[in-house]
Amino acid sequence: MMQPLPGFRDFLPPSCAARNALFACWRETCRRYGFVEWDGPILEPTELFQKKSGPEIVAQLFNFTDKGGREVTLRPELTPTLARVVATHEREFRKPFKWFSIAQCFRYEKQQRGRLREHFQLNCDILGDASPAAEAELIALAIDLLRAFRFTEKEVVVRLSDREFWTDLLRAHSVPEERWSDLLSVIDKSEREPRDKTAAQLGSVAGPVLEVLDGGGRSEKLEQLVDALRLRGLADFVKIDLSIVRGLAYYTGVVFEVFDRSGTFRAIAGGGRYDNLIGQLSDGAVGLPAVGFAMGDVVLGEMIAAVPAARERMTKLVLNAQALDLYLVIAKEERRPDAVRQLQSLREAGWRVDYPLTPTKVGKQFQIAEAFGAKATLLYGDEWPSVKMKTLATREELLLPNEDLFTHIQRTWSH
Amino acid sequence: MMQPLPGFRDFLPPSCAARNALFACWRETCRRYGFVEWDGPILEPTELFQKKSGPEIVAQLFNFTDKGGREVTLRPELTPTLARVVATHEREFRKPFKWFSIAQCFRYEKQQRGRLREHFQLNCDILGDASPAAEAELIALAIDLLRAFRFTEKEVVVRLSDREFWTDLLRAHSVPEERWSDLLSVIDKSEREPRDKTAAQLGSVAGPVLEVLDGGGRSEKLEQLVDALRLRGLADFVKIDLSIVRGLAYYTGVVFEVFDRSGTFRAIAGGGRYDNLIGQLSDGAVGLPAVGFAMGDVVLGEMIAAVPAARERMTKLVLNAQALDLYLVIAKEERRPDAVRQLQSLREAGWRVDYPLTPTKVGKQFQIAEAFGAKATLLYGDEWPSVKMKTLATREELLLPNEDLFTHIQRTWSH
Repeated sequence: MMQPLPGFRDFLPPSCAARNALFACWRETCRRYGFVEWDGPILEPTELFQKKSGPEIVAQLFNFTDKGGREVTLRPELTPTLARVVATHEREFRKPFKWFSIAQCFRYEKQQRGRLREHFQLNCDILGDASPAAEAELIALAIDLLRAFRFTEKEVVVRLSDREFWTDLLRAHSVPEERWSDLLSVIDKSEREPRDKTAAQLGSVAGPVLEVLDGGGRSEKLEQLVDALRLRGLADFVKIDLSIVRGLAYYTGVVFEVFDRSGTFRAIAGGGRYDNLIGQLSDGAVGLPAVGFAMGDVVLGEMIAAVPAARERMTKLVLNAQALDLYLVIAKEERRPDAVRQLQSLREAGWRVDYPLTPTKVGKQFQIAEAFGAKATLLYGDEWPSVKMKTLATREELLLPNEDLFTHIQRTWSH
Repeated sequence: MMQPLPGFRDFLPPSCAARNALFACWRETCRRYGFVEWDGPILEPTELFQKKSGPEIVAQLFNFTDKGGREVTLRPELTPTLARVVATHEREFRKPFKWFSIAQCFRYEKQQRGRLREHFQLNCDILGDASPAAEAELIALAIDLLRAFRFTEKEVVVRLSDREFWTDLLRAHSVPEERWSDLLSVIDKSEREPRDKTAAQLGSVAGPVLEVLDGGGRSEKLEQLVDALRLRGLADFVKIDLSIVRGLAYYTGVVFEVFDRSGTFRAIAGGGRYDNLIGQLSDGAVGLPAVGFAMGDVVLGEMIAAVPAARERMTKLVLNAQALDLYLVIAKEERRPDAVRQLQSLREAGWRVDYPLTPTKVGKQFQIAEAFGAKATLLYGDEWPSVKMKTLATREELLLPNEDLFTHIQRTWSH
């Protein structure tokens, strides 16, 4: 009773401030790229995910039957909802859509490091543009989302691949289409398996596939994508790696995953092109090419904690988000009504101001002001109708007639 | 399949921007009052709510059995979670806690106007302070949350009551404690019932209770609370109304509800003092007096839409949140690489910038720039290495060498 459910997090004020700082950073970066925010329901019909997600996701659905007998699921990912929403509202917006969302997602599985039963996921998608420019724009955003936390090309890398490269190869070797999904899954796992096991599973196409996995493959499409990112000064962040396939069933072209260079963590983000999903979901009524990615808060949070520059920036953001501007020190209880009156005006002027609700020793009030990160205290005591303002960082004190307080603060602090 | 589940909302970009503007306004106002943000899990053990919530909430729980056989519930309210969290982490924070949260909450019931199956709720609580100053501080916050949306005392009113007033009265008339809850519920509903029906249900205490309901009651505690709010200039927003009791079982003292004066909408917010809940939840280990309220996004949204000043402010916030700073118009495709290079630098400088991913007619590019609310366009064409900057509001045009672009924009726009 005194603990949250396994795999669910309580966000106490410091961790909530960190979470919000992360969200704010995500939002700000997406907005710089001209992306607008949307959101869908946390609960959806189970059917929506069974049809469109990869087998790993379906096996771990957080699904149940609701009181009305509906089969429903706490969303494991956002893309099927995006497809549903866009198929319905496609005509209301100018294409291409550049949409992002910060969505809590759920899975029912055993807890592991970096994998809880809930996490928050940033989803960024460009819909209605089939050009390679959309991939470049999206991957540039993924990189800038990491740079916003002070990560450099020394810490993170985007591994680029192309599903179409593989399906072209399988088609060229006359592999029947119903075997593609199994073979793609073998390729996806090849990095963590001995070569002979992979070869056995690949059967007749073992030769050409292994040649590519051993570095003998070339994709002009991916090389052009790297060039497009070079134009933006971001080429050092990316690397062509054809062994990436990604588990989700709906990808159709370029796919990518973002990793830390040290190989300590799970993928920070992943995505790709999924040109058929919206058409499938709308039974062909609306066909929109699409490319998107997701980035989770848990692995990113672990990365931030592990990289000093990122951690430092996050600490600063958290402190700024939580700090007060002013703390009112009531040194004489007779002055309380005067302090409360000014409290209200100071807050109305937009400052973050707190004060002791009940009589409190002056020394303790100063401690509270420090603990809450107040920039300055205002002391209401014998000096009234003047107020003593103390800047806590410098210990500077200044006696101000109470009616001059506002202009003084407004003038000294950039708001 | 193409619709969300009944009672759940899709947030398309305009409604998501409105939701975010509402959240931002809530956050900003709470922070001015020195409140810090926290959050709990969206899913909790059902037991947490069965024990502590009022009968209306328990009847409408969105509960189910998870795959591990646990009885779980999509949270209907945040207060039991707050009590759980605070009982566990009480020693880690300085008292009083001034905490707020913006939490999605759920209920399973038939949909009605202003009541969906999910909504977002702002919760604000002060814990660890039993003084009347805490009530004044909290109600002032509730009022300023409404003033932040430009509501005035002409549109909204906080109705103040006190459960202790009623329990004192029942005790004075020797009503046994096990009957209090039923009688409080009769008092709560009295406004919507004929007097004789209420009288019959009240039985032996009908006389003294009706006298109060007809205006014959006086509460010194509430009068002092009004005085405390008068000190802050907020007395016109409040009204003593002893007929308010509130359904939740855990309230112990002052209770209040916020309504629109026209009586068109459901309660915008409601709350009160609940001094025993945290003690009960921790089996007496941690006793913390508490006072809090919740404000939902649905009724508030309807109110904002209905009041011109509020609607106007919201429209402005939504436009600001969605607008671009710059749109790059590519008039000559040869200039695309130059434009993309500057795109990257402009975004890195913090501006919101977009551009056409694929070749697009110049006229259409200007239309897109207008549609996305860009402040200015930068035209890349024959003028290169100069760029033509056009301020869309004034139609002013300026030819700038591309290397001067940054200093010019930085200088003209306050960022």
